[in-house]
Amino acid sequence: MYKCSLERMTDKISTFSQFGDAGHGGITRYTLSPEDVLARNEFIKRMEAIGATIEIDDVANVYATLPGSDPEAKRIVMGSHSDSVKNGGNYDGILGVMSAMEVLETVAEQNIPHKHPLTAMIWTNEEGSLYPPAMMVSGIVCYDYLPEDVKGKFQYDDMMQSKSVLDKQTTFGQALEASGFKGDAANRLSPDTYKCMFEIHIEQGPILEDAGNDIGVVDCVLGMFNYRLRFYGQTVHAGTFPMPKRRDALYAASQALCYLHDEIDELGYSDLVYTTGEIECHPNVHTCVPDEVDFCIDVRHESAEVLGQVLAIVKSCAEKSWAGCSCQVDKMWNRDTVYWNDTLVSFVKAAAEETGVSHQVLHSGAGHDAQFVAYMLPSTMIFVQSKDGLSHCELEYSSPEHCTSGATVLLNAVLKADAE
Amino acid sequence: MYKCSLERMTDKISTFSQFGDAGHGGITRYTLSPEDVLARNEFIKRMEAIGATIEIDDVANVYATLPGSDPEAKRIVMGSHSDSVKNGGNYDGILGVMSAMEVLETVAEQNIPHKHPLTAMIWTNEEGSLYPPAMMVSGIVCYDYLPEDVKGKFQYDDMMQSKSVLDKQTTFGQALEASGFKGDAANRLSPDTYKCMFEIHIEQGPILEDAGNDIGVVDCVLGMFNYRLRFYGQTVHAGTFPMPKRRDALYAASQALCYLHDEIDELGYSDLVYTTGEIECHPNVHTCVPDEVDFCIDVRHESAEVLGQVLAIVKSCAEKSWAGCSCQVDKMWNRDTVYWNDTLVSFVKAAAEETGVSHQVLHSGAGHDAQFVAYMLPSTMIFVQSKDGLSHCELEYSSPEHCTSGATVLLNAVLKADAE
Repeated sequence: MYKCSLERMTDKISTFSQFGDAGHGGITRYTLSPEDVLARNEFIKRMEAIGATIEIDDVANVYATLPGSDPEAKRIVMGSHSDSVKNGGNYDGILGVMSAMEVLETVAEQNIPHKHPLTAMIWTNEEGSLYPPAMMVSGIVCYDYLPEDVKGKFQYDDMMQSKSVLDKQTTFGQALEASGFKGDAANRLSPDTYKCMFEIHIEQGPILEDAGNDIGVVDCVLGMFNYRLRFYGQTVHAGTFPMPKRRDALYAASQALCYLHDEIDELGYSDLVYTTGEIECHPNVHTCVPDEVDFCIDVRHESAEVLGQVLAIVKSCAEKSWAGCSCQVDKMWNRDTVYWNDTLVSFVKAAAEETGVSHQVLHSGAGHDAQFVAYMLPSTMIFVQSKDGLSHCELEYSSPEHCTSGATVLLNAVLKADAE
Repeated sequence: MYKCSLERMTDKISTFSQFGDAGHGGITRYTLSPEDVLARNEFIKRMEAIGATIEIDDVANVYATLPGSDPEAKRIVMGSHSDSVKNGGNYDGILGVMSAMEVLETVAEQNIPHKHPLTAMIWTNEEGSLYPPAMMVSGIVCYDYLPEDVKGKFQYDDMMQSKSVLDKQTTFGQALEASGFKGDAANRLSPDTYKCMFEIHIEQGPILEDAGNDIGVVDCVLGMFNYRLRFYGQTVHAGTFPMPKRRDALYAASQALCYLHDEIDELGYSDLVYTTGEIECHPNVHTCVPDEVDFCIDVRHESAEVLGQVLAIVKSCAEKSWAGCSCQVDKMWNRDTVYWNDTLVSFVKAAAEETGVSHQVLHSGAGHDAQFVAYMLPSTMIFVQSKDGLSHCELEYSSPEHCTSGATVLLNAVLKADAE
């Protein structure tokens, strides 16, 4: 049983928090931005310092590898992403990178014997916050292995044309060229050279904290669907048009949103999550009755049968009349539940038990790079407790102790996979 | 009893519809734009052709005056605005200008005797669609006479700094200088030189059409208030945060919006109109529970007592809990009901009866330049039937016959005021 270093982990957290520091305790670190390049260079500097070999692939993923004792053995990779959302926190993504670094540093420092080469990795553009979509680069790298209805979103040529949401001009392809991090496609993660993948991530929810557990042994990424409900009425003047003749699309959408919450809650599934988080209103002027309003609903659960029950409620909205408006229900996307590799999950669980780190089995409600990798390589994830469940905001926090415990569990789980 | 010309009115409607023609039956004619300058020059050309004297004031209002027989008599002014909203129709505003022109043209053609000088007028920037706020220039011209809580919105220096909603740079003051229509402040409408004002406008509602009446004898502009309801929750991740702990500001706002509709409808006032037409949602991302959502409510009724009852319902939202979110209710603005001058209203009514134009008494639910003028001069309005009640859109339509009937009633009402 080996332990990682609290002191070294704390130093990494404070160092990486400077790259994109937005002045309120969090960061804005868009993929391939100058701030992201600082983080990548820090990663390379520290990994070279322990004798790791650096490789970069054609989509800017960075790999740092320590050789193992068996020259024939495939690599075991650990990693996550270095980019953040706008005004995000210091843990989402980068904790998985820092934990992978910490594992290699501990292996190097303590001369821990291992058969397989061990690789720490930075994934490019997981957030998609500057160049959509999210999980862009794991979508590209795992493309051939993805389900048909998923891969359509991640065609290489389309991804290179993805435009900056800020200047609406710069493409991801241009940013990649300009970053100095466009390497060789031969270095891409693949089943030919890699055996399996581990990803540490913050929980981004309150379950571990509420239960008093340091880490989560993640068993799956929840299945989900995203639908858009569109309401069509008629714009008329706020002061001159009698109420009974109005067809108000915002009133219609509000009624339907409340109906959805009521009906879905009525199903009584305590582990179901659903979100009506985005709304568009046209013309959105205080003196006009709105004529077109649409909002989206994002629903996540492990069971396809439960998701089907919720979908039936969502679709029923199209059959009803809402404040005199029609309603159209459009599918945006969906994905099935992705289960992690049983053996790897059992290694994480055993490592947590042996190292005395409090833990529980959890689902992942969020999407992560490892979920695309799971179609290509045996993969699994470890969650670290998040304070108040907050994430994608500057208040995001996980204690150095919890982060170090996560790295310790990762190290020991990786050594079990190495010994397999 | 005199009659205006259907042929001449039809020609004016088709001519002015070209200035800003947006290709779908309507116009985009922002104030002081090249398209608006075309309309203004057409007005000047046609008014000079009948011998009217043109004057322009320092805020680009244009006045065309035919002299009366009494050199001491004050002017009677008729007019409205030449600007439109984006993708607006061919009647809102410009019909009041064309009707004033038609009255002067009829007076000139038929040599109708009159004592007072008669003035046709173009108001600048009523819509405020490029340079907010709406009714900007009547607010400037009538400034000294406006109620204290209204005038604060219309300070001259502030108005000159109002920025284009398109380029966010050009100020109204710059547009005024560049237009070639910045004239002399001494030409402004004032009680020293003007006796009273008439404004023709389309109804912008379906009441006249439903009742089968050609014109409306308007008795007042409805009192109104506009409040903003703000809901505060907490942003968390759509996939990772259990439902019972969420504080979803969009769900809160939707519940409150439905509550407002239910409670206000319960009051049972058939002539009350209220609109929840604008909503803002933050961060408005499909994977985040919204933390801040606000929407506005615009309420209009003649009676201050009725408005007070509705306001009590609006304010009660701040006392309730909405999906775990707090609610703040903020006053944006309000105005009291403005009654038109009784004598002028009676002239309009008598003129409609004498000319055989079907009519009824109506309130105005919308704001108009004449409503600010009413604080300075005796004023009144005439409404012309709108097809389907549509306005501020390209489908806006009033038949040439109804428009000509409106001008005929205006002409005969003006002559009654002249004879007074």
